[in-house]
Formats: sequence, C-alpha cells, structure tokens
Amino acid sequence: MPKIAPLSGFPEWLPAGRLVEQAVLDILRRTFELHGFVGIQTRAVEPLTQLLRKGDTSKEVYVLSRLQEQGEAPADAGAPSRRSSDKQLGLHFDLTVPLARYVLENAGQLPFPFKRYQIQQVWRGERPQDGRFREFTQADIDVIGDGSLPFHFEVEAPLVMAAAFEELRGLGVPPVRISVNNRKVAEGFYRGLGLDDVEGVLRNLDKLDKIGAEQVAAALVTECGATDEQAAACLALAAINGDDLTVIDRVRHLAAANHIPGAGLLEEGLAELATLLQEAVRRAPGVIVADLKIARGLDYYTGTVYETTLLGHESLGSICSGGRYDALATDGRRTFPGVGLSIGVSRLVSRLLSAELVRPTREVPTCVLVAVTSEETRGASTEVAAALRARGIPTDVAPQAAKFGKQIQFAARRGIPFVWFPGDDGPASPDQVKDIRSGVQVEADPASWTPGAEDLLPTVAPAVP
Amino acid sequence: MPKIAPLSGFPEWLPAGRLVEQAVLDILRRTFELHGFVGIQTRAVEPLTQLLRKGDTSKEVYVLSRLQEQGEAPADAGAPSRRSSDKQLGLHFDLTVPLARYVLENAGQLPFPFKRYQIQQVWRGERPQDGRFREFTQADIDVIGDGSLPFHFEVEAPLVMAAAFEELRGLGVPPVRISVNNRKVAEGFYRGLGLDDVEGVLRNLDKLDKIGAEQVAAALVTECGATDEQAAACLALAAINGDDLTVIDRVRHLAAANHIPGAGLLEEGLAELATLLQEAVRRAPGVIVADLKIARGLDYYTGTVYETTLLGHESLGSICSGGRYDALATDGRRTFPGVGLSIGVSRLVSRLLSAELVRPTREVPTCVLVAVTSEETRGASTEVAAALRARGIPTDVAPQAAKFGKQIQFAARRGIPFVWFPGDDGPASPDQVKDIRSGVQVEADPASWTPGAEDLLPTVAPAVP
Repeated sequence: MPKIAPLSGFPEWLPAGRLVEQAVLDILRRTFELHGFVGIQTRAVEPLTQLLRKGDTSKEVYVLSRLQEQGEAPADAGAPSRRSSDKQLGLHFDLTVPLARYVLENAGQLPFPFKRYQIQQVWRGERPQDGRFREFTQADIDVIGDGSLPFHFEVEAPLVMAAAFEELRGLGVPPVRISVNNRKVAEGFYRGLGLDDVEGVLRNLDKLDKIGAEQVAAALVTECGATDEQAAACLALAAINGDDLTVIDRVRHLAAANHIPGAGLLEEGLAELATLLQEAVRRAPGVIVADLKIARGLDYYTGTVYETTLLGHESLGSICSGGRYDALATDGRRTFPGVGLSIGVSRLVSRLLSAELVRPTREVPTCVLVAVTSEETRGASTEVAAALRARGIPTDVAPQAAKFGKQIQFAARRGIPFVWFPGDDGPASPDQVKDIRSGVQVEADPASWTPGAEDLLPTVAPAVP
Repeated sequence: MPKIAPLSGFPEWLPAGRLVEQAVLDILRRTFELHGFVGIQTRAVEPLTQLLRKGDTSKEVYVLSRLQEQGEAPADAGAPSRRSSDKQLGLHFDLTVPLARYVLENAGQLPFPFKRYQIQQVWRGERPQDGRFREFTQADIDVIGDGSLPFHFEVEAPLVMAAAFEELRGLGVPPVRISVNNRKVAEGFYRGLGLDDVEGVLRNLDKLDKIGAEQVAAALVTECGATDEQAAACLALAAINGDDLTVIDRVRHLAAANHIPGAGLLEEGLAELATLLQEAVRRAPGVIVADLKIARGLDYYTGTVYETTLLGHESLGSICSGGRYDALATDGRRTFPGVGLSIGVSRLVSRLLSAELVRPTREVPTCVLVAVTSEETRGASTEVAAALRARGIPTDVAPQAAKFGKQIQFAARRGIPFVWFPGDDGPASPDQVKDIRSGVQVEADPASWTPGAEDLLPTVAPAVP
C-alpha cells in the first residue's frame, strides 16, 4: 500500500465538514429555485480550444490524456493529430465557459431569458494557498438573454445572492458586503479624461489594494500614458464608495471638476448604478454598496460588476463575484448577453470550518439508534427501524448486540440523540426510548413516536463562542 | 467561435432532464440518510499509483497534466521525475478506490462501522456506447468495519438499495430485481469439485450470458483444467436461481451428487445466502433473488455479491452492483473489510429519458410568474415576488412589460402554472392570480395565497403511455 497523504489544493472534509457544506449547498439551491433559476450540470471537460480562449486562467488548465495514449508523442500545436488541441480535452476552470458552450449547443431548446444555477467542481492548476484550491466547488447563477437582456437583471442577480447569504446567516455564516461598480462609469470617466487604454487603467486599478495608490498612479503614468492629473483623477474616482445616492453625486462632481462632459457612457453607467443602489437599499438594506474601485480582472464585463466580502474575513478575498457581459457567447448570427455571479463554496466552507464559525448538531443523519438485545432478536430491532424510517425518521440499528451501555456510548459518540430499546412482545414489556442527552426514558410505539422537529435531522448552527 | 458539438460519452441533460436526475438523486440521498448513512465527497483525482492497483479498469484512467508542463518530455516509467506515476494524478474511475484511501487517511477520526454514501462523477476512457459513458454519476453506499464487519451488513446493504428503488418507482422507474450470490458458495463448490483456479472459473462463468453454456464449458476444460464432468457441475450450479430456500437445498443436492463434503466454505456460504434470502423475503418480497451464476468480474469480493436488473430493460446491464470484500484497505496494521453497492445513476437516468418513462410536471422550479404592467411599476411586481418567496413559493417576475397575453404565453411555455397580476394600490383593484391551465382567475393576497401542494414544486411522475 503506497503512502497515503492529503493532496495539497484538493480539499476534502470529514463527515461533519461535509454536513456543513451540504447545508450551505441546500440553502443555495433552495434560494436559487425560489427565484426561478433552473439547475443544470455540464460535463467536467471542454475541448482545449474552448478553454484557451479566456486569457490568464487558461494557463491553469488541467489537460486530460488516456493512459493508453501516454506512450504517444505529443503533437505539435498546429499539426493535424489525435492530440491536437481540437480533440484534446481539459477540465473546466469555471462554470462560465461551459455555460456559454451549453447555451450555444442547446439554444434551440432553451427558454430565454434562461435563468440557470449550476453547482459543480472546477479545477485550476494554480499554486495552492489559503482559500485557493486546485479543485473547488462553485455555485453560479446567470441570466442569459437571446440578443438582448434588460438592465433589471443586473439588479436582480446580486439581490438573489444577498438573499442566499441572508439565509446562510442562520448557519453561522458572517454577514457579507456586496460591492458593485459599473464598467460604463469607469470607461466613460477614463475616456472623458482622455485615457483610451481603458483595459490598462482597469488592470492597474485592480492592484490598488495590493500595491497602494502611489504605485498605481506611477503605473498609470508609465504604462497607460496618463498625466499626473489624470492618474490622480482615476484614483479619486476609485476612492468613492457608499450605499446611497450621494455616491452618484460625488462622481458627477469629480467628473465636472475634470471637465468630463455630463452625458454619454458615464451618465448611462451612473443612471444604472443609481437604479441598482435605490433597489438595493429598499430590498437588502446595508448589503450592497457602490465601490468605484472594483475593477474585476476579466475584460469581458460591460456593465455592473460585483465582488463580495465576508465581513471580518476580508483577507479571504471575494467569495462571490461576477458581472454583466454583453456577449457571453455568439454563433455569428445570434449573440447571448448575460449577467451572473459565482460563489466560491469551497473557499467559504473552508473558512467556516477552519475558523470554527459553525457547528453541526451531530455528525450522522441518524436520529434514533435501535439497540439490539441479542443477535437472535436483531430482526425485532430492524422492524422498529423500518417503522421509524417509514415515518421519515433517520434510524440506525446497533452494529452489535453489545451491553446496552456500550450501545448508548456508540450513539453518544456520533451525537445520535435517541436510543430505542425494543421490548419483548406483549404489554408486559413495551418498547422504550431514551433521550441520551437528558437521560429521560419513556415508553414508545414505533408507529407513533415522533422526535422534536429540531432533532429529526442534523442541523448546522452558529458555533457558540 | 469553434464548432460546438456534443462529446460522445459525456452526457448532459436539458433542464427537464436534469430535473429528473435531481429527483432521482434526492430520493437516493433521502433513503441513504434515513438508513443512517453519512454523505462524503472525495476529490476527483487520485495518485496514478493508487488507480493502477485495480486490474482491468485501470486501463481506462484519464491522466491529468498541467498545460504548462505539456512541453516537458514524458518521463520513463521508472525514472524519478516530476511526472513519474507517484506524482501523476488521474481521475477516479469509481468511488471505491477513493473510499479506501479516504478511510486509511482518516481512520483515526471516523466512527466504525463507517456507513457512508457518496454521489459523484467518475470517469472512464472506454469506448462510449448505449448506457456506457466516459463521465457518469455513481451513487454508492458502503459499510466499512475496522478489523471485522458482521455478516448482517451484507443483508442490510441490498435492502437499503431495494428501499431506494421502491421509492424511485413513484417517479416512474420500473421495478428491479436484485440478484445475489455468495463467493463462498462458488469457491467452496469449485474447490470441493477439485478445481483450484477459482478466479479462472469465475472469470469464465461471468461470460455465460454473452457466449453461452457450451463455450463456457469448453473454456473451463481448456483454461481451468476441468474435466467435462467438473465443467458440467459448474454450469449446473450456475443454473440454480430462485427467491426461496429451495435454492439452498438444490445446491446441497448438487454438491452431494458431486461428492462435495457438506461442511466448510460451501456450507458457510449457503448459511449466509439462506439468511439473506429469509430476511429479503420478509422485508422486500419479490425484489431479491438468489442467482448462482452471478460472478462479478472483480477479484476482491469475498462474500455476497449483487447485481441489479431494471425489469423490462435487461439489455441495459446491471444498474446497481457490488459485494462484500474482506480487505477494502489495509495499512499493514489495520484491515478494513466492507460491503457496498453502487448505482449507475447516469445509466439509469439516460434510459428514463430516452425511453420516456418519466415526465416532469414543468421545466422550471417556478410556481408563479408575476406579471409586470409597465416597467415603471416593476417594483410592485418584485414586491409580490418577494412576499411569495418569503413563504417558500418559487416565483419569477416577467422579464418584460409585454402585453399580458405574451406574459401568459411566457409562463405556459415553461409549464409555470400560475400568473399573478398585481392590482393598483387600494381596494378598488386587488391583486389577482390566474391558474393558466384551467383559466380560473381569483383575487389573491401575496401574504396569504397558497398554491396546491402538488403545484408548489415541479415533480417527476410516470409518463402516461
């Protein structure tokens, strides 16, 4: 047997941890479905040609080969070969590339706007570190339009995530802040200043938290051809944030002070941002804030962009990001715009577990352990179990007819709240059930006894500090 | 945009198909948890060294490499290199190899007997054909002991699966037959006959359905050194099947006729098989049958083995298989025996969909579509939606303030049963909700209106022929 060791970057949870993850996933699924999103799953692999179209992340692709083909020489990049990138498959590194392909492949059979959620593993061959994994679970929602997609979905999408995080608080997940910005504001402002390398400016501003204002300003001058004044204006814009409409006014004032005309793309973006803030204040007060420094690395966003911080755990980075893109996919004739957000479930769960923020009430689904008096009467115990299960009560039967004390210990070690003792047939010795936490033992009938609702299934609750 | 086409062997479902798959998975999860199994997930990858230990299936492993490493020369098999099989990772081809590794890695922290279920994708680079995929979902249950594992778990495990299939019938899944055999019976019988190449005999008998009795007999003679009489006895054993204890008597008679002593391994196996049949008749009548020709290809089974046929769809092959193994894993000091079964979920769902055996009541989770009178009053519609969602009713808001007829059509195309029309504020024009199937429209208050239980969520039901 070879040495057994965890693989760095490939997290796995013990049963109690999986219970927490499952509770998180159940809440996400329920929230997404409550909002009319339909679940899909896509295959884990995509042709390498598809995966390589998405900039930086592409470098982290895991490529697949079949063991039988291992001896074959690797193909030249351009050569027509079974291993050329056409035929080569890689593991998807996000759920957006597969969605784009799925939408194109099934466009004729999908109802648009297509609201889908998708909860799956993704793989990235990057260097593992705290909160960064090589295999992790994402939970995505996207709304995809056919040809056009109204702006109001840019308001809906983050509010769905806000609703999900609100539900997650019941488990012990800390509150979040969803920071929003609008690409049109940024682009309109930079272009109004006279800076045309919008992508370059965004890329540098994205480093603000890492390298600080001074270094960003210097880079804007040397890399993007900005004057000191233009760089200062970009940084002044990035410094604006808040959750009410004064944000809009402050941007307008800054634009005016820099002689940027009050119409066009900038104004269009400000109107969208204002609408989003107004709705957010009404429907999820305190959760969504405008933060004009949010840039998002990816160049395909064209409207609102989102990042989410777990309050008190800012070092974790964004746990839910996304944005509006005018062209998720196109087949030349039809173009599919979309807006979506993606929760980093593994990153979130990993922190919930490592910081001990949550606590499952027990480590197994079992609510009742039916004791076994002797191996000869195991049949009586399995019948009790069958009767309880038929009424939806998760039940297990003791693995061995050990002394009752040992069977109770077996339940206690797993957090199973009840132990059931089958009686002999007849009224002289009825069944009894013991709540092993309180020690209270009562007569019970498997056809009617019911545990308290809070004991039926394991639940996850905030850990008491 | 490169050509978009499905990948053979990597099935994906449209939203309605995923709804069916999700309904199947929900039932499996609920059944497993009712029986005290705890859910785990393991990483998708294992070191190649682990994967290559399991005979034939190993040939089908997908090996991973990072794109950056693609230029590097492939390592010689034995050379110490970053790409030697030590460090190389492959995608798991079943959930048993990962379970064995997980148990060894976490033995100190798991409660034994460890009852776990696991529902995940697996990958096999084999040639795709009907019901055989390169990526598919398995749903496994296993009970793992530490050092020993009582026989009664070999009775429990198939009964859990029988309970799951019983629940699945509500969706429209045809009934199943779980065929069982016992390796001890087979081995005891062959050895009693004087045939010591037990593995060889089993391997040949496994081909019975494919190549017929005559060819198997010939192979037993030429490959396993059997006489014609020994070969005939093996085939006579394989011909025995049935769901009651006469099966046991027929094996005993056959053994006696072939001068096989009535004690030892054969008798031990028969006693186990008899116990299993007795319990099965009592707890899942008609589902579990003994079939002495069931061999199961894998050599690590040591007790009961299982195969499951979907009645009326026998050509699909087994959709739920497994068995008892005395050494799932060992670290040299401790040995972990187990018993488990694995459902081929993708194989099952693929047939349910292609044969149109099941029918979802609608294609989206949405129960109510709230109409939008004008974009200016969209806020009123989102408030109705919020009120309904707060009461657990999946609700969507019309994407556009189109004519009401068009909004109703939007709902009808998705199978959404209700359309909600917000009134003006005030008692003059209250909200109304229309059941678009019956056309009945009534006044309604979002704080109290409740749909029928059968309409709340989409359900999956047998397709009416």
